[in-house]
Amino acid sequence: MGFHFTETEFQSCTGSKRFARLMAAAAPFNDYQQALLAAKDIWLNKVDVSGWLESFATHPEIGTNKLISQRCKDEQKAAFETATDSAMEELLEWNSRYKDKFGFIFLICASGRGMPEILDQLKKRFQNRPIVELEIAIGEEMKIIELRLASLFEDNRVEKLKDVS
Amino acid sequence: MGFHFTETEFQSCTGSKRFARLMAAAAPFNDYQQALLAAKDIWLNKVDVSGWLESFATHPEIGTNKLISQRCKDEQKAAFETATDSAMEELLEWNSRYKDKFGFIFLICASGRGMPEILDQLKKRFQNRPIVELEIAIGEEMKIIELRLASLFEDNRVEKLKDVS
Repeated sequence: MGFHFTETEFQSCTGSKRFARLMAAAAPFNDYQQALLAAKDIWLNKVDVSGWLESFATHPEIGTNKLISQRCKDEQKAAFETATDSAMEELLEWNSRYKDKFGFIFLICASGRGMPEILDQLKKRFQNRPIVELEIAIGEEMKIIELRLASLFEDNRVEKLKDVS
Repeated sequence: MGFHFTETEFQSCTGSKRFARLMAAAAPFNDYQQALLAAKDIWLNKVDVSGWLESFATHPEIGTNKLISQRCKDEQKAAFETATDSAMEELLEWNSRYKDKFGFIFLICASGRGMPEILDQLKKRFQNRPIVELEIAIGEEMKIIELRLASLFEDNRVEKLKDVS
C-alpha cells in the first residue's frame, strides 16, 4: 500500500514542473515523512536555478490585494489580521524594491507570522547579497512545500494505491 | 583624467546587460584597480540571478569545436594543448550531464589550466548541490571578468577622458 498523487497535485505544492515530475516518479510513498524526505531531496538537489525561479514566480506578492487563492489567504491570515494601512503601503514599497534588486518576489513562509515581523524580515533580507538571498528564499519555499504537502496528505484527495511490488 | 569604456565594451567582459550598464554608470575610473573593485561589487551584489544566467549563456561549452572567438581559444589554450581524443569525448559527455543537472553550462576560468585538471574539476563539481555550484560558477565568472577587464585596459581601445568633476 502507498500514497500516490498526480503531477498536478505535486505541482500545487510548488510551481516547478521538474519537482512535480520527479515527485510523481518517486511515489508511491509509505507515509508523509517519506514523501517529505523525497521532497526535500528533490527541491534542494534536483531542481535547478530556473526551476526555483519558476516556483517563485507562481506566488502572489505577499500582502497584495490582487485576486489570490483561498489557500494563499489562509497562509497569510496572521499577516492580514495585524496589518495597518500604513504597514500595507510600506510592504508594497519594499516588495517593489526587493524585486528590483533580486529579480524575484519576496518569499516568506507567512503562516502564523504577523505583519510587523514580515516587514522587519523584508527590510533585513533586502540588505543581503543576491546569492545569500536566493538560498534563504529556497529555504522559505521548502517550508511552504512542507505545509502544502501535509495538506495533500490530509485532504480527501489522498488516493491509496496497492503497491504492486 | 579617467578611463572610460562603452557599455558594449563592458559587456564584452561578461554577458549581463545590467553589469555593463552599471559599470558604464560607475565610470570613469582612475585606474584598473578601481574598475576591478567596482566590477566585483556590481557582479556579486547588483546583478541578479537572471543576470548571472544571462552571462553564463554567452559562453561556449568548454572544449567544444564549435566556432568560437579567438579570445575564447586563447583562454582555453592550455586545455586544448593537453587534450587527448578520449579526454575530449569525456569532456563532452560530462558537459552534457552537468548542464542537465544545473541548467547552465560548466564554467571554469580555463586560463593556464590543462585538460586533466579541468575534467577533474568538472567531475568533482558535478556532485555539488545546485546552490553551491551556482556560487562557484559566479566566482569563476568573476575571475574571467577580471582577465577581460585587464585586457580592456591594456588594449589600444582605452579612451582617456578628462574628468569634468
